Amino acid sequence: MRSKSISVSLRSETERERVKKMQSLQAKASEWSGVKQDDAFAIDDTNLFQKLGLQTFINLSTNFYTRVYDDEEEWFRSIFANSKKEDAIQNQYEFFAQRMGGPPLYSQRRGHPALIARHRPFPVTHRAAERWLHHMQQALDGTTDIDADSKIRMMNFFRHTAFFLVAGDELKSQNQQPQCKHGTSNQTPV
Amino acid sequence: MRSKSISVSLRSETERERVKKMQSLQAKASEWSGVKQDDAFAIDDTNLFQKLGLQTFINLSTNFYTRVYDDEEEWFRSIFANSKKEDAIQNQYEFFAQRMGGPPLYSQRRGHPALIARHRPFPVTHRAAERWLHHMQQALDGTTDIDADSKIRMMNFFRHTAFFLVAGDELKSQNQQPQCKHGTSNQTPV
Repeated sequence: MRSKSISVSLRSETERERVKKMQSLQAKASEWSGVKQDDAFAIDDTNLFQKLGLQTFINLSTNFYTRVYDDEEEWFRSIFANSKKEDAIQNQYEFFAQRMGGPPLYSQRRGHPALIARHRPFPVTHRAAERWLHHMQQALDGTTDIDADSKIRMMNFFRHTAFFLVAGDELKSQNQQPQCKHGTSNQTPV
Repeated sequence: MRSKSISVSLRSETERERVKKMQSLQAKASEWSGVKQDDAFAIDDTNLFQKLGLQTFINLSTNFYTRVYDDEEEWFRSIFANSKKEDAIQNQYEFFAQRMGGPPLYSQRRGHPALIARHRPFPVTHRAAERWLHHMQQALDGTTDIDADSKIRMMNFFRHTAFFLVAGDELKSQNQQPQCKHGTSNQTPV
């Protein structure tokens, strides 16, 4: 009896751990993007800012948002309708520069990136993530001076991050369910 | 008539800008914490990780959470009741190490810090921020090998960040108001 009870206890612990893990933001991001955590953060194995320089990031974000603001898909274009294109460009390249080994331009001006919270006003669906990534792939391909290795690292980071934000977006609807109890999340504060 | 109309238009633009600015997360953080943005991110003017070393961050977070989990104030202690103390310690020192110039330990294990979203399950009130800061000040003072200059930089960062999270916490209640319209926020996506 005793060993059976221990075994059941261990199994349910493992099951609980598995379920808990699958519910986490990063597990969802990996599952939906198809990009493993290690590959997503391979941007940190090299200093992409030093390699590429600020102007390349500015060019990339300008290319990207030129495509986004001209998107023939109105449902996607409209997500950005309340922001000025030049603000969107600056927010993006400052964040990229900071996150990929450069000076903390974004935080000096706007504070913590707080990626999920700052995307809260926007409908970050699976479809929107794919459309964002489509434009970013085109923008990367259309930006000179980004070598193939850096492109792969950056796309893996972008793809994982896009679906991390989709997972974050789904927290909004969870939060609106009144039956959602405090403490059922596996998130822990810093 | 014409110059009057232009003047009114400019004044309302300035007013709108002022209101918009005051509503931003970082403006609220500065106002409530009393720490200017530049002072909060003076942690980036030097490499605190290289200066202090990982073990100092581990000691700081261990000191901090030992105080928190033993807090005589039950309302504060209970916020952490669903997290294991050792997990809370690791999450914190990995984030601090990463943010203050060290290797990206936090992101390798858990992805983007996403500070506001990861604090979503917790009631991050003004009172809770002050209690957190009280314990952190004591933990800093009780950790050897942290020089006075680093302490000031770190406390300014912690104080600003704590109130940034209070501002983020208030987004939750905004979101629950059904009359809240898409696009009224001044947040822009990356």
